[in-house]
Amino acid sequence: MATQSQAVVALGGGHGLHASLSALRMLHDSLDVDTITAVVTVADNGGSSGRLRQEFGVLPPGDLRMALAALCGEDEWGRTWAELFQHRFGGHGEMEGHAIGNLVLVGLWELMGDHVRALDWAGTLLGARGRVLPMATTPMDITATVRPPGAAEGVTEVVRGQKAVATTPGEILSVALSPEEPAACVEAVQAIMEAEWVFLGPGSWFTSVIPHLMVPGLHQALTRTPANVVLLLNLTAQEGETSGYGPVDHLAALMQHAPDLDIHTVVADRGSVQDDVALAAAVRDVGAELLLADVAIAGEPHHDPAKLAETLRSLLSS
Amino acid sequence: MATQSQAVVALGGGHGLHASLSALRMLHDSLDVDTITAVVTVADNGGSSGRLRQEFGVLPPGDLRMALAALCGEDEWGRTWAELFQHRFGGHGEMEGHAIGNLVLVGLWELMGDHVRALDWAGTLLGARGRVLPMATTPMDITATVRPPGAAEGVTEVVRGQKAVATTPGEILSVALSPEEPAACVEAVQAIMEAEWVFLGPGSWFTSVIPHLMVPGLHQALTRTPANVVLLLNLTAQEGETSGYGPVDHLAALMQHAPDLDIHTVVADRGSVQDDVALAAAVRDVGAELLLADVAIAGEPHHDPAKLAETLRSLLSS
Repeated sequence: MATQSQAVVALGGGHGLHASLSALRMLHDSLDVDTITAVVTVADNGGSSGRLRQEFGVLPPGDLRMALAALCGEDEWGRTWAELFQHRFGGHGEMEGHAIGNLVLVGLWELMGDHVRALDWAGTLLGARGRVLPMATTPMDITATVRPPGAAEGVTEVVRGQKAVATTPGEILSVALSPEEPAACVEAVQAIMEAEWVFLGPGSWFTSVIPHLMVPGLHQALTRTPANVVLLLNLTAQEGETSGYGPVDHLAALMQHAPDLDIHTVVADRGSVQDDVALAAAVRDVGAELLLADVAIAGEPHHDPAKLAETLRSLLSS
Repeated sequence: MATQSQAVVALGGGHGLHASLSALRMLHDSLDVDTITAVVTVADNGGSSGRLRQEFGVLPPGDLRMALAALCGEDEWGRTWAELFQHRFGGHGEMEGHAIGNLVLVGLWELMGDHVRALDWAGTLLGARGRVLPMATTPMDITATVRPPGAAEGVTEVVRGQKAVATTPGEILSVALSPEEPAACVEAVQAIMEAEWVFLGPGSWFTSVIPHLMVPGLHQALTRTPANVVLLLNLTAQEGETSGYGPVDHLAALMQHAPDLDIHTVVADRGSVQDDVALAAAVRDVGAELLLADVAIAGEPHHDPAKLAETLRSLLSS
């Protein structure tokens, strides 16, 4: 049990954020952490989220829904509503593929006219062990400057939309948001400023992790917070988005977008790092500590929430 | 306050059932009634319900949703989720017109594979002051034998589907269900058998009220229950479905479909009855008591839940 209260913030999106939140929820259950805030990318334009965003002009709800499910209560009540939120309609009609939680979130937004208030209501329904916030309260797109496959040095093109960026065959040189400088969700800024620990990643590097650093308000909060900022590195490259990337490349891409970010610790999976000397040097170069630990599901390129929780517990008590 | 516990069942559908349930909820709040069960028609084939029914082969959720909303808790929690359930998506896309509660109910049915269990979960969410059950757990259609406008005596045609029946320009001679003898929801049968009072109507007479009597299990329960069966008459004729009908015609149409029904009391709105002598005679002919009371919203052809509650309170304590 921790000797003091610990407020933590996890930034990311999709399955990566689901993994880090699942780990933090375990630390919450063991009283090592007492306040969890998830800050979620809202640039998705594919699938159920993309359809709802296009139809209603709202935030894409999918990553927010998944974060809520990761934090849901462990009792029958919380698990049942979380399962409903995650359930997708089957069939071949107009409802096909829509996750019910997405529809509930959009409905709450329409009803309340307030994204944050609606998310808080959904969180209460699910008995969420923390608060889920969007990184911004206006939908946005991700654009990437890409070197097309086989193109000559200096030849680039711009790819627009999370779905296209995540699957581009070209090499991503940098990403940006459109609109370029969206206003951060103020509650997210406040949570980062008041936290003891802030976790960034894992997740789709250019479309779920780095976008947080492109929101000026979040960027400022992340560079000015007294919290320790921890980078949770991905275990592998992601085809399309980070093809060929090792841990050093992930770190470099992030620092390229936020040279002023003061990282406290970089957490990497011991079994996924091929050259730990090079990684240690790169981490030292940015002024951070390297924490190599066993955080992967055996034989799978995914984080194991229980192992990640164990690693973060030792980090938080260090 | 009642001197004994009172279990009541209300059968119907749509706005009529919403009115009777709203009145019964008031009696529940004042402790005159302690158990409310709503038994709801599941033959709707129009609107959001019709689309979902066609896409997923499930029960049409709309009338069930409306009954849940009528029974929702009066606190902010119950009212907020009831409001969300009743909220319909706007816009012009694939979601247009879908009530969010309909989508949640269909999702719960898919998830749980059990209509009644799913409705109980939704009821708990809304803090419902009673249980909402479908009259049967398989979707069905209503068919009507109709005399077309201007047709000669003996010339009839069959109209199929609640939407078509409710708006037919012809005169409805009788209704039936398709499939003809659906199995009743067993929990509904049990509730009717255990009730002290059973309320039938008001509502769309041929498509929301009489269908209950066409389900063999419910018909039997309604004719054999020791409960007092109370018929709540509509205030006016309904264009298309009961054009030209007065209170006596409503009673006659119902008795035509259930000659063996033993009605305890017929409740009619004093201001809506033009010939109370004729109605009194018709009610006496079926062996029931006539209760004329002021139950309408002033100047509107709708039941006032508060006035209806007052009338039912005196009836229950008689």
